[in-house]
Amino acid sequence: MNMDEEKVVGETAICTVGDGHSLSYRGYSITELSAWANFEDVAYLLLYGNLPDRAHLYRFQQLFIKSVTLPQPIKAMLEILPKTAHAMDMLRTVCSLLGTLEPENAPGAEAELAIRVMGVSMTSLAYWHHFHLTGRRLIAPYEQQLIAQYVLNAFHQRTVDESWVWALNIAFVLYAEHEFNASTYAARVTTSTESDFYSAIVTAIGTLKGPLHGGANEAAMALLSSFETPEQARTGILKKLAHREKIMGFGHRVYKSGDPRSPIIKDVAQQLTKKSENSRLFEIAEVIEQTMEQEKGLKTNLDFYSALVFHCIGMPTSYFTPLFVFSRITGWAAHIMEQRQNNRLIRPLARYVGPKARAFVPITER
Amino acid sequence: MNMDEEKVVGETAICTVGDGHSLSYRGYSITELSAWANFEDVAYLLLYGNLPDRAHLYRFQQLFIKSVTLPQPIKAMLEILPKTAHAMDMLRTVCSLLGTLEPENAPGAEAELAIRVMGVSMTSLAYWHHFHLTGRRLIAPYEQQLIAQYVLNAFHQRTVDESWVWALNIAFVLYAEHEFNASTYAARVTTSTESDFYSAIVTAIGTLKGPLHGGANEAAMALLSSFETPEQARTGILKKLAHREKIMGFGHRVYKSGDPRSPIIKDVAQQLTKKSENSRLFEIAEVIEQTMEQEKGLKTNLDFYSALVFHCIGMPTSYFTPLFVFSRITGWAAHIMEQRQNNRLIRPLARYVGPKARAFVPITER
Repeated sequence: MNMDEEKVVGETAICTVGDGHSLSYRGYSITELSAWANFEDVAYLLLYGNLPDRAHLYRFQQLFIKSVTLPQPIKAMLEILPKTAHAMDMLRTVCSLLGTLEPENAPGAEAELAIRVMGVSMTSLAYWHHFHLTGRRLIAPYEQQLIAQYVLNAFHQRTVDESWVWALNIAFVLYAEHEFNASTYAARVTTSTESDFYSAIVTAIGTLKGPLHGGANEAAMALLSSFETPEQARTGILKKLAHREKIMGFGHRVYKSGDPRSPIIKDVAQQLTKKSENSRLFEIAEVIEQTMEQEKGLKTNLDFYSALVFHCIGMPTSYFTPLFVFSRITGWAAHIMEQRQNNRLIRPLARYVGPKARAFVPITER
Repeated sequence: MNMDEEKVVGETAICTVGDGHSLSYRGYSITELSAWANFEDVAYLLLYGNLPDRAHLYRFQQLFIKSVTLPQPIKAMLEILPKTAHAMDMLRTVCSLLGTLEPENAPGAEAELAIRVMGVSMTSLAYWHHFHLTGRRLIAPYEQQLIAQYVLNAFHQRTVDESWVWALNIAFVLYAEHEFNASTYAARVTTSTESDFYSAIVTAIGTLKGPLHGGANEAAMALLSSFETPEQARTGILKKLAHREKIMGFGHRVYKSGDPRSPIIKDVAQQLTKKSENSRLFEIAEVIEQTMEQEKGLKTNLDFYSALVFHCIGMPTSYFTPLFVFSRITGWAAHIMEQRQNNRLIRPLARYVGPKARAFVPITER
């Protein structure tokens, strides 16, 4: 297979990776956005094209608060699912079911549907978690608050420390959008047949699940927590490299000289772990980072230190990719809208390398 | 958007459209396969690479018979879903739920998983149909029979005429595989992140749903049944063309001089409608075909006369695309396996056409 994946296959006005050296959403650099914006600003920017003023931000927040209510059949399904199910499988099924229960009737409401999918996704994750952990049926908190705060409070069922909200907010900002990555591109292929909004989102979730894409943050956490000391980490990584094992959380198809999101999320991880029980994990992460740079010339990507951040804010590793989903729904929705604006069926061709023409053989002669 | 969709983006050994003039699966022309093969032969050919001998065919049939049993949570979900749900949304959710309940543990069992998805898909459709029509819980018939026979008997809950089995068998053979069409390509993108088999199938179902892809046969039926006489059909089509309306079931991105599957399925439609109450529908179809050829130089594609065939064998229009899914699962599975054999993440690039770099504006100044 000699796929020409790195070819330019289309245009977008949503995001640019700046020839592989920077990242900006609709013209705003992620450096500024992650320093000053709430995820609400970024979600609005991606869905509606511009930063919201106060009135529009308020309306957006109201829409989000409304969106977290789970339809009864989704609750019923979450209760049926085994607690051992993969969280991404659960989320893919929840979004597919949501699209069956509340189908998209006509184009034009994509941004509102995106908000609905966001609300249902995170609430489903929290509902499922608590139902299978304690048998308790979650009642979503309804006070006005930041989205990152809602997610953390719903999950932990308590008011969490502000530093956690700050950290998750930045992670959400950084994960929100990334041009023609695999899940986004797959969602655009689905959209190109004039299929519905939910089908495209379900496609994207199933695509993000893979360890070469969204699943990388979970793999990075598994790596981090497999070591107890920085020394062990260095020896362990060298051994893995000698065995040609793939180390997740390093390198990027698009960013050859480093992921511009990495220093931002590393700083968050450092702040969170300082003077905490997790400070050892940060040291381990830094040693792995140095070893990979020295041995392979590879730098961390967003997934590496994000794993540590999600861990520090009390999230089980199996929920890391669902958190990525939650944020990226905004980017996917923006691309679905863009694909629809000037749609043409995405139908590539293949070079045939199979058997030559051969005559059919009846079963009696096989 | 200036997508280069018609570019060759990879290689395949599964199927060739022969420069847009013919179609063969692994070297066997669909003309021969549709004349002499059962769908079982074709499914086996796509999944395992060669036509089965008697022993392998028997094993395949046994696997299929085993595969039709529905897990209890799927039955529960089918009963919860509103009867007004879109059949493709239902099917997408069923397959996503199946993958959550019976996850793929390791690569290597794709063919068996494909058979399982086939069995569950069709049985779910029949179960859902009967539950919401009569409140009766379907018990799948377990006798050995052809797959096309199983599908028809499960759906109609009686032994149907042999001509119907013959017709559906050919439709399944023709729908089984079609190179890098949108749903297959989307499934390959999902697979390229190392996501699981079910995620890729769910992607494909959501992509096939669109009216520019699998949904076309339903649109063609809506068109056919909107006319009562051939004269009305001719006038109606001319009017639609004058209003620049899109007529579904005509033209094909790959076949510029006609879809090689079209004459085969047209012949089936003609046989089925001869001397039946549907003979008028065949006349209407032929008039539409002639009008489109004269006015636009466009020929029918597989979806046009397939619609008539599915209608004649008693299938509600909303189940036409699910029937397409059932057959195409074999082709999708073959492509998932092929993608995995020599995988590389499919991650194309975009040309940025959005806003120039701009500075962040705090909410107080917006």
